Amino acid sequence: MKNSDMSEQWIEQVKWNSDGLVPAIAQDHVTGKVLMVAWMNAEALALTVQENRAIYWSRSRQKLWRKGEESGHVQQLHEIRLDCDDDVILMSVEQLGGIACHTGREHCFYKTLQEGEWVPVEPVLKDPNSIYEK
Amino acid sequence: MKNSDMSEQWIEQVKWNSDGLVPAIAQDHVTGKVLMVAWMNAEALALTVQENRAIYWSRSRQKLWRKGEESGHVQQLHEIRLDCDDDVILMSVEQLGGIACHTGREHCFYKTLQEGEWVPVEPVLKDPNSIYEK
Repeated sequence: MKNSDMSEQWIEQVKWNSDGLVPAIAQDHVTGKVLMVAWMNAEALALTVQENRAIYWSRSRQKLWRKGEESGHVQQLHEIRLDCDDDVILMSVEQLGGIACHTGREHCFYKTLQEGEWVPVEPVLKDPNSIYEK
Repeated sequence: MKNSDMSEQWIEQVKWNSDGLVPAIAQDHVTGKVLMVAWMNAEALALTVQENRAIYWSRSRQKLWRKGEESGHVQQLHEIRLDCDDDVILMSVEQLGGIACHTGREHCFYKTLQEGEWVPVEPVLKDPNSIYEK
């Protein structure tokens, strides 16, 4: 993408942390479920809006992560919001395939605290090995 | 609180960042709206569960922040979840007073991207000066 795209005012307004990142929340546009949280840099944010799908910065792989590029579980963008402090992004998305989590679950927040333990309470919808095999 | 409370396994399981923090999302337990995102350290997380209300770590003030301590806009905890990577907290809360944002709005994500600008689209429900005056 052109550098000019990342120097636009709406991108410069975002208060990036010392690593040049902000947390980005993906929320299901129908159910309101919080699907996942990942991180964006300026390029990921610009591309998310340009391509109308969630594109994150993978901190572990240190590269752009077009959500769904391997799994097909693309997050189509319906709306994008910024919080009062300009340092958190909230996306309303349509989750293709109905699975956001790499564990094969609908969303990543599948553990709830019960009697001092994080207990998984959401079913695995698809074997992760079958999601990512080529 | 006792140090022992913070050495419990469910707290040690959380993958704190290099500053000892994780992002914590507050979501309205009825509407599903994402109200705000702030940060927690181990003590804030332990106290949140112990006191059954959202308690954050204020990065700007470098101290515990019992949400609502000044404004009365306490967030009562209904459920608390952890994501697949053990590094983001999601709380389902009841927002007392119906206002989560320091700007006097229902929630912090009141700006949406429209034609290359972050545009406020949610009303101010209460003058912030009247929220915080003593």
